[in-house]
Amino acid sequence: MAEQELVIEEAQREDAASLACLLETVALESDFLAQDDRSSILSAEQLATYIEGHQHRLNEICLVAKLGHEVIGVCNVTSDQDTKTSHIGDVFIAVSKPYWGNGVGQFLMETMIDWTDHTPAIRRLELTVQARNERAVHLYQKFGFDIEGTKKRGARTKNGEFLDVYLMAKLIDRSEEHT
Amino acid sequence: MAEQELVIEEAQREDAASLACLLETVALESDFLAQDDRSSILSAEQLATYIEGHQHRLNEICLVAKLGHEVIGVCNVTSDQDTKTSHIGDVFIAVSKPYWGNGVGQFLMETMIDWTDHTPAIRRLELTVQARNERAVHLYQKFGFDIEGTKKRGARTKNGEFLDVYLMAKLIDRSEEHT
Repeated sequence: MAEQELVIEEAQREDAASLACLLETVALESDFLAQDDRSSILSAEQLATYIEGHQHRLNEICLVAKLGHEVIGVCNVTSDQDTKTSHIGDVFIAVSKPYWGNGVGQFLMETMIDWTDHTPAIRRLELTVQARNERAVHLYQKFGFDIEGTKKRGARTKNGEFLDVYLMAKLIDRSEEHT
Repeated sequence: MAEQELVIEEAQREDAASLACLLETVALESDFLAQDDRSSILSAEQLATYIEGHQHRLNEICLVAKLGHEVIGVCNVTSDQDTKTSHIGDVFIAVSKPYWGNGVGQFLMETMIDWTDHTPAIRRLELTVQARNERAVHLYQKFGFDIEGTKKRGARTKNGEFLDVYLMAKLIDRSEEHT
């Protein structure tokens, strides 16, 4: 990682192919995801359309962590368009395994939180994480996410074992210094 | 309601138009839904396709409560096809306001729970409900759903007021007498 600079930026159409690879790899190499992100079932072409859709919505963003042209991490926020729940951003974050422990997830979270501070549409962020994934739980807590509840049998391993999944959330209230 | 018999059955293609009316009415007349069901944004034609899709999946069902040809209530269970979470049934239930207090919701729940008892694919049912909707919370508790957590700002009224939303769940373990 020392060779190339890590860049965090909003995903562009051109990132779709590399992002599709990342999502496929992440789904294969980790049994730790509480659930697959909805974008992980999309082809590169569908993903390009998905990325463009996000760019036009105030309450959604897709951030990528890149080394050169390679996408090695993603932080995706999706929201409903229904006014009852359009203030809720559903967070999905994933980093390619070889790059774990280098602060990529942290950089992605920082950039995403900074975005919410400037996005009045978002007043709550939520995510689910396997309770056993202590490393991720710790990262989310560091960024102000609280455990709101435990979903029993919220996920299942490839071997059929049921796992507890935490529902975590962070309320967004822009402070004076940000306005 | 005394004139016609209440029938609870799996939705058929022919029920799509009446079901679409119900979902539209329910969305308008109630500020109590934690969120609109994904099926509520579908046209009658799309709903017909949606109903047929459910009929072919082991872990999904759409039950309707009917008086004659009129759909006055619905209990819909949707699931992922992803093996990590395909054992989780997401429950949505709605009854037309003029029929509240007649046990329609209860009949729908009974039929749905009976279905899960014969559906090995489902090992967890979950739903969200506004904390202030005590009547619904009480109904779910009566059927063995526990409050797993409270989603702060989990919903917003038409006036912009934030509401607490409960995440409720029921684990499904078939007892000997059912097998």
